[in-house]
Amino acid sequence: MLTPSGLISLLTDFGLYDPFVGVMKGVILARFPEARIVDLCHGIAAQDVVEGAFWLERSFGWFPPGTVHLAVVDPGVGSERQALAVRSSGHVFVGPDNGLFGGLIAADPAAEVRVIDRGKIGLPPPSATFHGRDIFAPAAAEIAAWNLSFADIGPEHRAAVGPVVPAAQRSVERVDGTVVSVDRFGNLITNIDVGQLQGLSSPIAGIANLERPLVRTYSDGVSGDFVAVVGSFGTVEFARRDGDAAAALGLGRRAPAYVRSGA
Amino acid sequence: MLTPSGLISLLTDFGLYDPFVGVMKGVILARFPEARIVDLCHGIAAQDVVEGAFWLERSFGWFPPGTVHLAVVDPGVGSERQALAVRSSGHVFVGPDNGLFGGLIAADPAAEVRVIDRGKIGLPPPSATFHGRDIFAPAAAEIAAWNLSFADIGPEHRAAVGPVVPAAQRSVERVDGTVVSVDRFGNLITNIDVGQLQGLSSPIAGIANLERPLVRTYSDGVSGDFVAVVGSFGTVEFARRDGDAAAALGLGRRAPAYVRSGA
Amino acid sequence: MLTPSGLISLLTDFGLYDPFVGVMKGVILARFPEARIVDLCHGIAAQDVVEGAFWLERSFGWFPPGTVHLAVVDPGVGSERQALAVRSSGHVFVGPDNGLFGGLIAADPAAEVRVIDRGKIGLPPPSATFHGRDIFAPAAAEIAAWNLSFADIGPEHRAAVGPVVPAAQRSVERVDGTVVSVDRFGNLITNIDVGQLQGLSSPIAGIANLERPLVRTYSDGVSGDFVAVVGSFGTVEFARRDGDAAAALGLGRRAPAYVRSGA
Repeated sequence: MLTPSGLISLLTDFGLYDPFVGVMKGVILARFPEARIVDLCHGIAAQDVVEGAFWLERSFGWFPPGTVHLAVVDPGVGSERQALAVRSSGHVFVGPDNGLFGGLIAADPAAEVRVIDRGKIGLPPPSATFHGRDIFAPAAAEIAAWNLSFADIGPEHRAAVGPVVPAAQRSVERVDGTVVSVDRFGNLITNIDVGQLQGLSSPIAGIANLERPLVRTYSDGVSGDFVAVVGSFGTVEFARRDGDAAAALGLGRRAPAYVRSGA
Repeated sequence: MLTPSGLISLLTDFGLYDPFVGVMKGVILARFPEARIVDLCHGIAAQDVVEGAFWLERSFGWFPPGTVHLAVVDPGVGSERQALAVRSSGHVFVGPDNGLFGGLIAADPAAEVRVIDRGKIGLPPPSATFHGRDIFAPAAAEIAAWNLSFADIGPEHRAAVGPVVPAAQRSVERVDGTVVSVDRFGNLITNIDVGQLQGLSSPIAGIANLERPLVRTYSDGVSGDFVAVVGSFGTVEFARRDGDAAAALGLGRRAPAYVRSGA
Repeated sequence: MLTPSGLISLLTDFGLYDPFVGVMKGVILARFPEARIVDLCHGIAAQDVVEGAFWLERSFGWFPPGTVHLAVVDPGVGSERQALAVRSSGHVFVGPDNGLFGGLIAADPAAEVRVIDRGKIGLPPPSATFHGRDIFAPAAAEIAAWNLSFADIGPEHRAAVGPVVPAAQRSVERVDGTVVSVDRFGNLITNIDVGQLQGLSSPIAGIANLERPLVRTYSDGVSGDFVAVVGSFGTVEFARRDGDAAAALGLGRRAPAYVRSGA
């Protein structure tokens, strides 16, 4: 069951320097004046569906049940890809069918996936380039306002695009993964989940030519040291004490990384 | 008639990395605790009244009627320019008299323009450098709270600074305009309105040495291609598929652009 | 006495391009759905407790009494530093004990400082790297929701880390200070308070090899001129008319600056 909380979170790759996010909020509030809108993140790298999906999967659970998460990272806007609404784990997700929700759907056998039927929501023909404003924001507003039941959104969809965040690969003594995000501090954040590290003794994390034992926190080390930690969203990351690991190492998204047994 | 919605949108060139926007919100909420505040855009290029006016004109209509739009792009802060409140099309606009609202006023014969009288709102003398906090935010809060009628704001003003966004020029076979904004994706957004293109056959858009047929959407083209489209706010823009057109072409705001008949 | 306003302001060095601030908001709203959350500032330079403290001290008074200010600039996250809640001047401050609140506490003999007791709030063990989400956001939500009295937060703390913003030094004919922040426009903002200038005749402000008379506003000067003004938060700053003083002078935070008598 879903009880809408009136809360709508926004995740996009629009940045906050243009009026695109603001206009989406205007559209939401025009349809649902009581909406409480929270910016989850607008700094997803341009058109990087992988980074968007990674952060959405890792973040949505911190919001109260009943939140509608509006996610728009949409390199295929204007093409034939569908517009989706997904109900899973007591939350709703609205956005393009390009894999942004693929991991969420794959992880939840009870997930309900529907194609948004513009007619049901009373939407005029959308622009070719801004479905965030013309389809996804109004759909999220109507769902959050409880103006239509989930089944009324449109037909069920059983062929949604699958997961786009690559799964790190575990072998006996090693996990191989990749950097999926770089944060403001220059920390290199990988897809290697803490759950995949079980059984590795004295684990050592590596990226490019750097190897470091996994430690507990950024402050384990002196200024300038590189450290490897399990970050606050449950995956391995590489940081530099009082510095910027990504810049210092010349690495970014898609860089291979691993954790191996050290003993 | 105006029915305030309790909604206040903010458009500035302050960016979001300093506390200036946050302090304006504190000032608004101290006077009007129930205000719902929405960031429309804070990434207007520093002191670029043209870009601010362009986005305000193109964006405000997506908000519900009764919204108070607080707009501060104010290179003349501390000089003798007036502080304005404008009522037009069911919305209110509050900000400096420097042309930011010139286009809105010119387009609406029924627009009502008033000079903000600090005494009416009970404001102490403002700082010389931050009228957003000291004049415009409190005025917007009082108007949105419906604490004073529009006529009580101050005297009517019939000499507001006129439009600052240059109008693209139509001739028989051609429209000449200019880039007014560059978005996060590097798309070059012009002032050439879709309405000015009527009668051009097989229109071709040009900028610098580049000419491209006007297509429907960014995804018409292969990776790296430059494309020209009518963007989601109704003007011609130049984009690069999976890339940054502004960086690749070395162009930005004020670059001349045109659309001509191609047949 | 403190009457909570339901308002929570956020000041961090997280930036707005990652989901960290958004997730903190989700955590707040999960505990206190009626919270009204305002971003005060997320652009504090990474780990710069001095800049964070400066802006917090200069900004909080613009918010209504009863606001809970959640401030997280936390280079020592995961180390032994305490988590604090401070009640002062009718406002509450929640964040790490690293000097961020040192100036506020030193300036208010009536300030009440308590160590946050996780057990009282019912918090699970925190991550080692994101106390903003795991300790400070939930504590701020519970306090703002008035779910616990201030005395119930935890034990009193009389040894909070002291002020970190250096005080500018006044001598007979001169005040010596330092740049503590650089804003989006490239203005160099110092810690030299307007109150320290009393008795200086025809004051002249200097930084590096530049000296300028203190003027009233940025627009006193022609394009390209450097100007020195008392900024809108009450301290001396250096600006460049229609330009970026910090970039043009090659100066930033920690640069020495002064004001001297000019006659």
